[in-house]
Amino acid sequence: MRASAYIAISLDGFIARPDGDVSWLDAYNDDCGFGDFFSSVDCLVMGRKSFEKVLSFDVDWPYGKRHVVVLSRSVVQIPSELENTTEQMAGSPAEVAAILERRGFTHLYVDGGATIRGFLDAGLVDSITLTRVPILLGSGIPLFGGLEREIGLDHITTRSFDGGLVQSEYRVANARADQGVELDA
Amino acid sequence: MRASAYIAISLDGFIARPDGDVSWLDAYNDDCGFGDFFSSVDCLVMGRKSFEKVLSFDVDWPYGKRHVVVLSRSVVQIPSELENTTEQMAGSPAEVAAILERRGFTHLYVDGGATIRGFLDAGLVDSITLTRVPILLGSGIPLFGGLEREIGLDHITTRSFDGGLVQSEYRVANARADQGVELDA
Repeated sequence: MRASAYIAISLDGFIARPDGDVSWLDAYNDDCGFGDFFSSVDCLVMGRKSFEKVLSFDVDWPYGKRHVVVLSRSVVQIPSELENTTEQMAGSPAEVAAILERRGFTHLYVDGGATIRGFLDAGLVDSITLTRVPILLGSGIPLFGGLEREIGLDHITTRSFDGGLVQSEYRVANARADQGVELDA
Repeated sequence: MRASAYIAISLDGFIARPDGDVSWLDAYNDDCGFGDFFSSVDCLVMGRKSFEKVLSFDVDWPYGKRHVVVLSRSVVQIPSELENTTEQMAGSPAEVAAILERRGFTHLYVDGGATIRGFLDAGLVDSITLTRVPILLGSGIPLFGGLEREIGLDHITTRSFDGGLVQSEYRVANARADQGVELDA
């Protein structure tokens, strides 16, 4: 099993304005390869805040029938129409990853700042794809800041898109090396 | 007169480790176009900390005869061999920029986190070139975080280099628009 982060980020490292607003992303229509990425994952892992944020959008649930794990130690209200695909888990990233691997999932999509940082700290992220949006938000909810250690990365590829989006994909150099996990190229 | 920032940054947005250490940059020998950029500027503006950091490096002064302005409200010790090219100024970014423009400088290179943020907040940065280093430092001295406002950017170009460096150049969309400053392409 491998895990990937795939997220849009302002040039100054924020994934949302201080109040969680992400409408600064609305100007961009290109999916920047997200559809291809999403079709390669079989399970989403996100925090409660990300889950509730997505629910708040005035659109249909964007993740179809894909299995979704919401990480939370408090009870999460899961809408009835999502009960078949969505479950809540509490536990460390390592515990959650072990459960999902035993269940046969092959590619996790970890989303949301806290979830991505937790999985990175646990050495459980194999690939990071950042789509840089050409804006300085000045303040907001950071993606990084507060990792427990330095993590080396291998740059795989960078692409530019209309509107000034710059997307870079990185392999995490030391992810689960001790577990002999084989990384796809 | 225009002003440019040109700086290396970790993937998580730090320009140095918490103690100011930048040895994580030592692995990279490619100048990534810095020489061309540097030959286009006629004045460096940097904070006291950046100045003292560069002085601490075990190499000759890297900026040759280029004029250097060290921003500091306290007295800065300027080595005698740099007295002809280096001066100290105190004042707001707008005040410093006005002085330098009156003196005939045409292209400022603003360097260091606090200096870049101060000039950005004052609308005095025309161009930002970030060279992203493929490492997550986890913690350190941030380049951004704490700007007073949102700033739109235009993506100009992105280049990748050996070793996984990814360099993106941005035009600051709203820099001094009210002053009718003409930006070079």
